[in-house]
Amino acid sequence: MVQAFRAFVTALSAAAILGMGTAALADTKLTPPKGYRQWFHVNTAIVTKDSPAYDAIGGLHNVYVNAIGLKALKSDTTYPDKSVFASDVHEFTVTDGVYNEGSRKGLAVMIKDAKQYAATGGWGFQVWLGGDPAKPFVTDAAKQCFGCHTSQKDHQFVFSSYLP
Amino acid sequence: MVQAFRAFVTALSAAAILGMGTAALADTKLTPPKGYRQWFHVNTAIVTKDSPAYDAIGGLHNVYVNAIGLKALKSDTTYPDKSVFASDVHEFTVTDGVYNEGSRKGLAVMIKDAKQYAATGGWGFQVWLGGDPAKPFVTDAAKQCFGCHTSQKDHQFVFSSYLP
Repeated sequence: MVQAFRAFVTALSAAAILGMGTAALADTKLTPPKGYRQWFHVNTAIVTKDSPAYDAIGGLHNVYVNAIGLKALKSDTTYPDKSVFASDVHEFTVTDGVYNEGSRKGLAVMIKDAKQYAATGGWGFQVWLGGDPAKPFVTDAAKQCFGCHTSQKDHQFVFSSYLP
Repeated sequence: MVQAFRAFVTALSAAAILGMGTAALADTKLTPPKGYRQWFHVNTAIVTKDSPAYDAIGGLHNVYVNAIGLKALKSDTTYPDKSVFASDVHEFTVTDGVYNEGSRKGLAVMIKDAKQYAATGGWGFQVWLGGDPAKPFVTDAAKQCFGCHTSQKDHQFVFSSYLP
């Protein structure tokens, strides 16, 4: 069976990205991408309380990619600079065995700039709590983000794969 | 908390839409909409084995809407004819508490034509098993689809709501 997320949990480091309630200074000048809700929806995954990763990245993850990134994702070629993935993380409820999407918990983004972000696989990372541009959370992308994404080196550090 | 799907489970009738393995003749001339994967992603819900609805509509539901329908969804106005919602239903796996999207199980569509489909709230319904145009499943939309959607009369028979 096609797996949209590869080895999502087992690859997780101890980085706590979304689980904490406080914001921190950003380590980059990144801002939330405009219009990402109109981008191509790549896939959705849910990290539940039963996951050891819940404290770090618990939530319903709707993953979107911009047009530049989509072309590379589809063709399995090198992501050009300005490729962007956005994981729109939502709260969720479970009612009678049905998982439903709730309010926004955070917005996680990775943007390609091979030169600027050479130390983290060519990708810049940031997470905004509640999707609020005033609440960037990542202060050390190498530890908080790349620690997990490095497991996906064979896939250009991207967890998602293309589902037609 | 915002709920993307309203009363999804409790509203379900006994209609078995996706749970059966055989195709049936279509009762309409509907065909799967082209390009729905590029439409606006409305929300995602997962109907798990713990749901009484699993046999009917179990799976990971990625809901998309076309541009005509999106305008009405956002503004909470009457859906014009040619509004289309597509629920792209996927298998899913659960690994260490993480739900991951798998292969396509079915494609469920509702298309607005107030006159043609007056008997079912102005919406025509069809489901294609595996998303295969040659495998339409719905033979009696009133029983198999509208039986549930009628519970959403106050929302124009649409379960999904708009999440910015």
